[in-house]
Amino acid sequence: MKKKKSPLVSVVMGSKSDLPVMKETTSILDEFDIPYEIYLTSAHRSPERTRSYSKDLEKRGIKVIIAGAGAAAHLAGVIASNTILPVIGVPIDSTSLHGLDSLLSTVQMPGGIPVATMAIGKAGAKNGALFAIRMLALDDTTLHKTLESYTKRMAKAIEEAQEIL
Amino acid sequence: MKKKKSPLVSVVMGSKSDLPVMKETTSILDEFDIPYEIYLTSAHRSPERTRSYSKDLEKRGIKVIIAGAGAAAHLAGVIASNTILPVIGVPIDSTSLHGLDSLLSTVQMPGGIPVATMAIGKAGAKNGALFAIRMLALDDTTLHKTLESYTKRMAKAIEEAQEIL
Amino acid sequence: MKKKKSPLVSVVMGSKSDLPVMKETTSILDEFDIPYEIYLTSAHRSPERTRSYSKDLEKRGIKVIIAGAGAAAHLAGVIASNTILPVIGVPIDSTSLHGLDSLLSTVQMPGGIPVATMAIGKAGAKNGALFAIRMLALDDTTLHKTLESYTKRMAKAIEEAQEIL
Amino acid sequence: MKKKKSPLVSVVMGSKSDLPVMKETTSILDEFDIPYEIYLTSAHRSPERTRSYSKDLEKRGIKVIIAGAGAAAHLAGVIASNTILPVIGVPIDSTSLHGLDSLLSTVQMPGGIPVATMAIGKAGAKNGALFAIRMLALDDTTLHKTLESYTKRMAKAIEEAQEIL
Amino acid sequence: MKKKKSPLVSVVMGSKSDLPVMKETTSILDEFDIPYEIYLTSAHRSPERTRSYSKDLEKRGIKVIIAGAGAAAHLAGVIASNTILPVIGVPIDSTSLHGLDSLLSTVQMPGGIPVATMAIGKAGAKNGALFAIRMLALDDTTLHKTLESYTKRMAKAIEEAQEIL
Amino acid sequence: MKKKKSPLVSVVMGSKSDLPVMKETTSILDEFDIPYEIYLTSAHRSPERTRSYSKDLEKRGIKVIIAGAGAAAHLAGVIASNTILPVIGVPIDSTSLHGLDSLLSTVQMPGGIPVATMAIGKAGAKNGALFAIRMLALDDTTLHKTLESYTKRMAKAIEEAQEIL
Amino acid sequence: MKKKKSPLVSVVMGSKSDLPVMKETTSILDEFDIPYEIYLTSAHRSPERTRSYSKDLEKRGIKVIIAGAGAAAHLAGVIASNTILPVIGVPIDSTSLHGLDSLLSTVQMPGGIPVATMAIGKAGAKNGALFAIRMLALDDTTLHKTLESYTKRMAKAIEEAQEIL
Amino acid sequence: MKKKKSPLVSVVMGSKSDLPVMKETTSILDEFDIPYEIYLTSAHRSPERTRSYSKDLEKRGIKVIIAGAGAAAHLAGVIASNTILPVIGVPIDSTSLHGLDSLLSTVQMPGGIPVATMAIGKAGAKNGALFAIRMLALDDTTLHKTLESYTKRMAKAIEEAQEIL
Repeated sequence: MKKKKSPLVSVVMGSKSDLPVMKETTSILDEFDIPYEIYLTSAHRSPERTRSYSKDLEKRGIKVIIAGAGAAAHLAGVIASNTILPVIGVPIDSTSLHGLDSLLSTVQMPGGIPVATMAIGKAGAKNGALFAIRMLALDDTTLHKTLESYTKRMAKAIEEAQEIL
Repeated sequence: MKKKKSPLVSVVMGSKSDLPVMKETTSILDEFDIPYEIYLTSAHRSPERTRSYSKDLEKRGIKVIIAGAGAAAHLAGVIASNTILPVIGVPIDSTSLHGLDSLLSTVQMPGGIPVATMAIGKAGAKNGALFAIRMLALDDTTLHKTLESYTKRMAKAIEEAQEIL
Repeated sequence: MKKKKSPLVSVVMGSKSDLPVMKETTSILDEFDIPYEIYLTSAHRSPERTRSYSKDLEKRGIKVIIAGAGAAAHLAGVIASNTILPVIGVPIDSTSLHGLDSLLSTVQMPGGIPVATMAIGKAGAKNGALFAIRMLALDDTTLHKTLESYTKRMAKAIEEAQEIL
Repeated sequence: MKKKKSPLVSVVMGSKSDLPVMKETTSILDEFDIPYEIYLTSAHRSPERTRSYSKDLEKRGIKVIIAGAGAAAHLAGVIASNTILPVIGVPIDSTSLHGLDSLLSTVQMPGGIPVATMAIGKAGAKNGALFAIRMLALDDTTLHKTLESYTKRMAKAIEEAQEIL
Repeated sequence: MKKKKSPLVSVVMGSKSDLPVMKETTSILDEFDIPYEIYLTSAHRSPERTRSYSKDLEKRGIKVIIAGAGAAAHLAGVIASNTILPVIGVPIDSTSLHGLDSLLSTVQMPGGIPVATMAIGKAGAKNGALFAIRMLALDDTTLHKTLESYTKRMAKAIEEAQEIL
Repeated sequence: MKKKKSPLVSVVMGSKSDLPVMKETTSILDEFDIPYEIYLTSAHRSPERTRSYSKDLEKRGIKVIIAGAGAAAHLAGVIASNTILPVIGVPIDSTSLHGLDSLLSTVQMPGGIPVATMAIGKAGAKNGALFAIRMLALDDTTLHKTLESYTKRMAKAIEEAQEIL
Repeated sequence: MKKKKSPLVSVVMGSKSDLPVMKETTSILDEFDIPYEIYLTSAHRSPERTRSYSKDLEKRGIKVIIAGAGAAAHLAGVIASNTILPVIGVPIDSTSLHGLDSLLSTVQMPGGIPVATMAIGKAGAKNGALFAIRMLALDDTTLHKTLESYTKRMAKAIEEAQEIL
Repeated sequence: MKKKKSPLVSVVMGSKSDLPVMKETTSILDEFDIPYEIYLTSAHRSPERTRSYSKDLEKRGIKVIIAGAGAAAHLAGVIASNTILPVIGVPIDSTSLHGLDSLLSTVQMPGGIPVATMAIGKAGAKNGALFAIRMLALDDTTLHKTLESYTKRMAKAIEEAQEIL
C-alpha cells in the first residue's frame, strides 16, 4: 500500500482491527496528497519489529509518525523512545473501558519522551493527519495553501448545512 | 520576557497561576536555545486578545504554539481554530478533578481542528517543549544534534543513578 | 426555520448530528410558544461565524442562548465569552466517553464566564428549554401561568401512570 | 445577614461548612450591589424547612436561587422541584470523591425540573452569582452596564498581568 | 397492584421506565410471599406526592421502602428525609453515564440521613428485596427459615450447574 | 470494649487503621445506648476468623453487622455470605483511588447476597449506625422515640446555625 | 470436563455466564496441552464450596488458579486467602460499569494477599493462561520451548498480516 | 545492592523516585531471604538499556521480574514483551490522576503478553514480592514453610490487635 512518492508520514497500528479507525488518517493524507506508508506492528507482540522499524524511520525520510493503538496503548510511546522524530498518538477504543485506558496510556508520558495525543477514535485519527499536515505545511507553501482552503471549506460547509436546515 | 532573537515558539497560558507549571516548558526551550515568547490570555475572559494574537502568530514568524490551561481548558482549542500553525496543549491540574477536566477538554477535539495534547501538569509542560523541538529539528541540523545528545544524556543519567543506588 | 415572531431564544449546535438531541429543546419551546431560532456553528470549525453571531445576539433581541455540543464541548463557553447574555450549555454524548468529556468541558468554566450546564443528552436539552422558560417567566405573567400548569400536569401524569399500573 | 433592600437573590447552602465556598457568590453579589439573603437548610436533614422556604421564595420577591451543596447534593434539585423560579446549583467538593458526586447529583436532573449547574467549588460559586447577574441584567440597564464594565475589566486585568510578567 | 394482605414493603420508583428493573424486587417479594405495594412518584416532578406518601408510610404499617431511580437519583434520599423507616436505594442505569450518576447520588448521603444502597440495576433491585427480607426475618421465624433454604438452594444451584457443565 | 448488655450490633473492621472512621459508628451507637461490640478481622488476612465469627453472630443475639473496609473491600460481602443477618457496608478511603475502589467492591454485589452500602468514610460510618437504628426501632418504641427526637434536633440545629450566621 | 492427566491449573468462575470469557483461558491451556479443570463456585453464593475447594487445591497437585468474576469480584481474593498457591484474577465486564468495578475489586488487594490481575474480559482471560504458562515453563523445558515458539509465531503473524494488507 | 547469592528476582523501576514504594518489595524479599537485584531503567528514556536487560534476564538465572512504574506505565509491558519470564507490574501513583493512569497502562495488556498486575502503590509493591514468593514456593519446600508461617502470623497479628483494642 506504499505510494509511489517516498513516504513522508508513517501510519502505524498495532492490529488489523485498528484499520477502520486509522482509515480516517489515510483518507486525509490522500486528500492532501501526502505520501505515506501503513505499517502493522505491535509494541508488545512484535517488539523487535517495532524497534527496528522505529530506528530506521529517520534515514528513510519519514518526517512524522501517526500511531494508533488500543488498551494499554504503548505503541506511540515505544516508537517515540526509539526515534527523535515527532510521534502522534491516536488512542483507540477497543476494550470495555471505551478508550479511557488507551487515552491515559498514550497521553500520560513521563517528562522526556513526548507523544502528541489526539482524541479517542475516528476524530483523533482524522486530526492526527491534520496535525501532521500543519507541521509539514510550515515549510511547504503549496501544502499551506491547501490547508488554508480546507479549513475555509470546513467553515463554509457549516453555513451550507444551516441553509439546508 | 521576549528574547532578542525573533521567537519561534509561543508559550501561552490562561492565568498567571499556570506559570509554575509552564516554567517547565520555558526551561527546556532555554536549554535548547530556542527563542520564544510568553503570552498571557484567557480563552474565556479575554477572547478578543486570544483571537487577535492567534491570527497574528503566523505573520510574526512563530512556528508552533504551546498552550497551557486548566479546568474547561479551551485555550489550545481556540488558538488552533484561529491559526493553521501546529498547537500543542498542556492540561493543567487546577480544580478538584485533578486535571481530568482539562485533559478531556483539551484532547477530545472534534475532527477538523487538531490539538497535540501532552500529559497533565509539569511532565506535559516539559514534553510540550520537547515535542516542539522534535518538530523544529526536522529542518535544523544543529538542533537535531542537540536533541540527539539530550536524549542520550537522559539514558545515561539513568545508568549513573543506578551506580549511586 | 425562524419563527415569525422575533426570536427570544437562540438554539445553537455544533453539528447537524446534534439535532436529534436538540429537538428536545425546540419541542418544549414550541409547546410554550416561545419564538426561537436554530443556528448551526462550531466553536472550532467556524470560529468567526460563532463569534460574529454571538456578538450580534443582544442587539437582535435574543434573551437567552441554549448551546448543545459534544466531545471537547467549547461552544457554550465560547458564546458566553462573546456576549453577556445568559448561556445554557447542553453536553451531548457523541464520543466513546459517553458525554463525560462534553459535561466537564461545558461545566468546569473558570471564574468569570458562567455557563449554566444541564444534564448530558436529551434530558438536558429538554431542561435547557425549561430553564430558559423559568427565566423568561420572571417578567411574563402568561408564560408564568403556562409554566405553572405544565409543572402541575407533570405531577398529575405520574398519578395517572400509577392508576394504569 | 439580610441586606436592607428586599433581596432578589437567595444564596442557600446545606451546611455551615459550605460558607467559605459560597462567600465567592456573595462577594460578587456585593460587588454588583445586588440585594441577597443567605439561607441555611439541608435537603436531607431539614426537609420541611427546605420545602416551606422554597415555596415562599416567589411571593417574597426573590428572582433566582443559588444553592451550594456537597456529596449526594440534592439541595438545588429539591428547591427546583418546589418553585418555578430559576435555580442555579453549585456542586461543592466535600467528600473523598472530590466533587464528582456533587457534580453528578446536581447536573444529571431528569427532564422536567432544570438546575443550572456551575463548576465544582469556588469558581462555580463565583459564576453562580455572575449567571444570576446576566439574568437580572436582561431588564436592568444599570446592572447591564456594570456587567459590561466588569467583563471589560477582566479582559484588561490580563493585559496588565502580562506587563508585570 | 396492592396485595390483599396489608403491605409491609413499599416498592417506589421514579418513572414507569424503571419498572423492568424493579420487577426483580417484586419477583423476590412474591417468591417470599411478602405483601408489598408499588408506588410511582418522582422526587422532582411530583414532590408533594413523594412527601405525603413518605410521611404516611409508617402509620400505614409499612416496615421498609425500596426506592429505585436513575440519573441524579434523589428519590431514596428524599423519602429517607421524610420518614424514619429504613430506606433501601436501587440506582438505575438510565443515562449515558451508565449508572455512575445514580449510584453516587444515592450512596453519598451526608451524615444524618442513611440510604442503604444496592448495586446498580437488576442485581441491586433483587438484592433490595433480599435485604428487606433479611431485616424482616429478624422477627419472623417462618421467613427466617424460608430465607435459609433460599440461601442453601442458591449454593446448591451452583453445584448443579457444575454437573451440567 | 464489649458493653455489659448483650450486644445487638457488631461493628467489624479490617484493620486498626479503620478505627478513626468507624468511631463515627460507635459514637452514634453510644448516643442511642445500643449495646455493640467491636471486632477486628480481615476478609483476606484472617479468613477463618472472619468466617467463624460471621457464622456465630446469629446465635449470639447480634441483629445487624456494620462492616468497614478499604481498598478491594470484601469484608462486608464475605460476612453477608456467611450469615443471613442484615449486613451494612462502609467503604473506607484508604488508597490513592480515594474510596472509589472500596465503594465499588462493597456496593456492586451480585444478585443473591445483599450488602447495604453507605457513603465513603465518616459520613457513611455515621449513617451505618443510623440505618441500624432505623431497623432496630421498628420493634422498639423507646428507640423509635429517641430516633424521632434525634431527627428533629438535626433539623433544629440548622435553624440555630442560621441564627448565629 | 476434567482432562485425563492430573490437572495443574484450576480455572474457576463465579457463574455459568462467565464461561464465554473464560473459554479464552481454556483454549490457550488446550493449545499448550496443560491439564486443567473447570470449577464453578461463587465467593458470595457458595462460600463453603469456594473455601473447601480452595483449601484442597494444593494437596490435589494444582499449581496455579485462574479465577474469573464480574461485579464486586471477590472470587480471586477469597481463593487467595484460602491457599498459598499463586492466584490469577480475570475481571469480567458483567455490569453497567463495564468492568471498572470488577477490575478494582480484583486488583486493589491489601498488602499480604496478592492476586495477579489481568486485563478486563477476553484479553485478560487469554493472558491469565499465558501467565500461568510462563510460571510453569520455569521448570519445564518442553513447555518453555513451546512458549518460545508461540511467542515467535505471534510476532510472525503480524508480518504476515502486513503482507496481506 | 546485589545480594551475594545469585539473584532470583529482579526488582526494576523507572525512576529513583519510585524507590520508596518499591522498598516494600525488597523488604519482603529480605524477610524471606530471597536473593534479588534492583535495576533502574525507563521504558521510555532508556529503551536500549531496558531491552538488553530484559533479554538477558533468563540466562542470568532470574526467575521473575517485579516492575514498578508510574504515569503511562509501560515498563512491565515492555519487559514482558522482551522475555518469556513471568513479569509482575506494580502501578505507582506519581501523577495528578492518582495511579489510575499507571493501573490502566499496566493491567490492560492486549492478549498475548501478560503482566500480573498488583494494587497501586505500597500495597501492590508488597504483594508483588509475595506473589513472586508464592510462585517460587511451588518448588521450594523451605520457602513454602516460611510462607505458610508468614500467612499464619498475619492472621494471628489481627487477633493480637483485637486484644490490645
